[in-house]
Amino acid sequence: MTFKVPEDIALCLNEDRGKAFLESIWNKKAAYCCVIGNTETAKIPGVSAAGANPEATDFTPAADMELLYFGRCKCIDGVPITPDGIPTPGIVTMSALKLAPMPIFVVNGGLRVKPHTPYIEVEGTPGGDIRTGKAVKGAERAFDRALVAGRQLAKTVDYLVVGESIPGGTTTALGVLTALGYDTKEKVASTFPVNPHDLKGKVVAEGIAASGIDPELLRNDAMAAVQAVGDPMMAPAAGLIAGAAESVPVLMAGGTQMAAVLAIIKAMDDTVMDNLALGTTRWISEDKTSDLRGLVSQMGDVPVMAANLNFSASRYDGLRVYETGLVKEGVGAGGSSIMAMAATGGKVTCRSLLDEIEKNYARLVSRR
Amino acid sequence: MTFKVPEDIALCLNEDRGKAFLESIWNKKAAYCCVIGNTETAKIPGVSAAGANPEATDFTPAADMELLYFGRCKCIDGVPITPDGIPTPGIVTMSALKLAPMPIFVVNGGLRVKPHTPYIEVEGTPGGDIRTGKAVKGAERAFDRALVAGRQLAKTVDYLVVGESIPGGTTTALGVLTALGYDTKEKVASTFPVNPHDLKGKVVAEGIAASGIDPELLRNDAMAAVQAVGDPMMAPAAGLIAGAAESVPVLMAGGTQMAAVLAIIKAMDDTVMDNLALGTTRWISEDKTSDLRGLVSQMGDVPVMAANLNFSASRYDGLRVYETGLVKEGVGAGGSSIMAMAATGGKVTCRSLLDEIEKNYARLVSRR
Repeated sequence: MTFKVPEDIALCLNEDRGKAFLESIWNKKAAYCCVIGNTETAKIPGVSAAGANPEATDFTPAADMELLYFGRCKCIDGVPITPDGIPTPGIVTMSALKLAPMPIFVVNGGLRVKPHTPYIEVEGTPGGDIRTGKAVKGAERAFDRALVAGRQLAKTVDYLVVGESIPGGTTTALGVLTALGYDTKEKVASTFPVNPHDLKGKVVAEGIAASGIDPELLRNDAMAAVQAVGDPMMAPAAGLIAGAAESVPVLMAGGTQMAAVLAIIKAMDDTVMDNLALGTTRWISEDKTSDLRGLVSQMGDVPVMAANLNFSASRYDGLRVYETGLVKEGVGAGGSSIMAMAATGGKVTCRSLLDEIEKNYARLVSRR
Repeated sequence: MTFKVPEDIALCLNEDRGKAFLESIWNKKAAYCCVIGNTETAKIPGVSAAGANPEATDFTPAADMELLYFGRCKCIDGVPITPDGIPTPGIVTMSALKLAPMPIFVVNGGLRVKPHTPYIEVEGTPGGDIRTGKAVKGAERAFDRALVAGRQLAKTVDYLVVGESIPGGTTTALGVLTALGYDTKEKVASTFPVNPHDLKGKVVAEGIAASGIDPELLRNDAMAAVQAVGDPMMAPAAGLIAGAAESVPVLMAGGTQMAAVLAIIKAMDDTVMDNLALGTTRWISEDKTSDLRGLVSQMGDVPVMAANLNFSASRYDGLRVYETGLVKEGVGAGGSSIMAMAATGGKVTCRSLLDEIEKNYARLVSRR
């Protein structure tokens, strides 16, 4: 029987390779990993909506992980929200993992607030404001440690799904993609419906200038680029993915932040690129204010696919608002939705996911 | 075809259950985990030989883990040795993992020196001298975090093997077993050929008295016992094993230290005991100065088995000396040898293991 890609997954780039990738993971055993961290960049006014206020963004990654493990947050009341009260995309990931239970592993890239969960330590440290041009310390060490961890995890399952949670991460993504010489013009996404491209561009330019590193050198040294204008999620995510992809397929679960991680992997070890795909949400793949395809197509023929999540018919305002372009992606929401469909051979659909998401939303958010 | 236990594995206690356990893991997919930590107890003169000198014992667990991952140590030159220069049993574990490659996971129970490897963090802290009666902080938190990690790992493989590396650990084992009310008279093993039972007993009695806790209360509160006179490996090892054993078999790889961990598991959640077995070395099972069977038989019908490792015919003095009762066990040497046999359906034998051990010994030790 020939494999047919379900309608709930849209192939967005390198479609044939995307279809083959999906076929290779269909009904197979997965583990979900999430690389988390904090960067002071999130606290630059106007940069991130991944927290009720700039200080609250410190808690968002830890709270997201607690949500995945325990179905509720421990380090904060309720769940992470935007300044407008819109809940974290971690609710999507958590719902996907409920419908398709699988092992969950957290990697601490560098956190100000630790989750009340076990996590894999790779000796990263929280990131600084990229305007300093010295945003991350010890990127290569974190990459190497995570590489080893990725190799171990790859021995346990058929494929890996790797997401991220780091507020401010699209700005640092713009930083690293710019430093590595990619065309980034209005291509990087945002948690805001109106993408603050100008602000982000200014922050990145300031950081690159402050780093004092010759742009030509920066372009050819991914670890230097991360250390100058990246964030502490990037190097361990790249290492984890590269280590696993030496032997198994890896679905990189995220939007333009994962494009930055892909650029780092390409620079560190491009032999693993054939084992990679990017899985994201429809809100990213159809986003008019960013261009994930335009980024990934500069890096080779890695497929991009999107879960056709659509909250327009939801009973809840807080979910319907996702259709206006708020939040869009995070905690591997899109990739984990694809993973839930693949793990259950298509039994999980965007419809059954929305039901589960609404159930969790009702429990976690609406009654607060 | 009926399953036959190979001659290289000796069933030492609850033989029928041991045979059934072995059959359940034969040719199955495993992961090897090691829970490591440091305790100041190791620095009491005469307590531990797991390092060239008391201060060197701080490096032993980290160096052991580097040996497993990279085939050589990074935080020290050479490998961990006893004051007499006898190499770590980590060489046995490393050789077993080379012959039967499988994923390796390290849990940081509480370390003074961190390994140059990724590790699972459970927020433990290094342990104090048990003579203070306040040896460990936050035992229950570490137990709970490790419990969650064990549940995740259990979803990835058919069974788990869990070892430990913590110098001074047999003295803290005596501490916890005594506190929990077990008959421990000359039952706990030692890295020394002449077991310093009197010294250990004195240290433990001092610790229990210093804790100021009513012995009756201590007997019924495993976490209080660990915090008074235990070490930081114990609670996370118990949690990891209990979490995994909810769903898969777990081979507890160690000697009398693992008996202490078993006592803790029995106190925390005795419903998982049916999924457990203890795997150790012949040097422990035949040790005249300790009594693993006498300990485990007080806890229920958990089977004990031993890898019939025998170094008397080795080309190397440093290995032959294991036959005099030095070192005996550690880093899950015995259990990982059993695991290598099980994972390869018996293709790995004590003979082929010794060949591999000698090869690694020659490379790592003899040419220093």
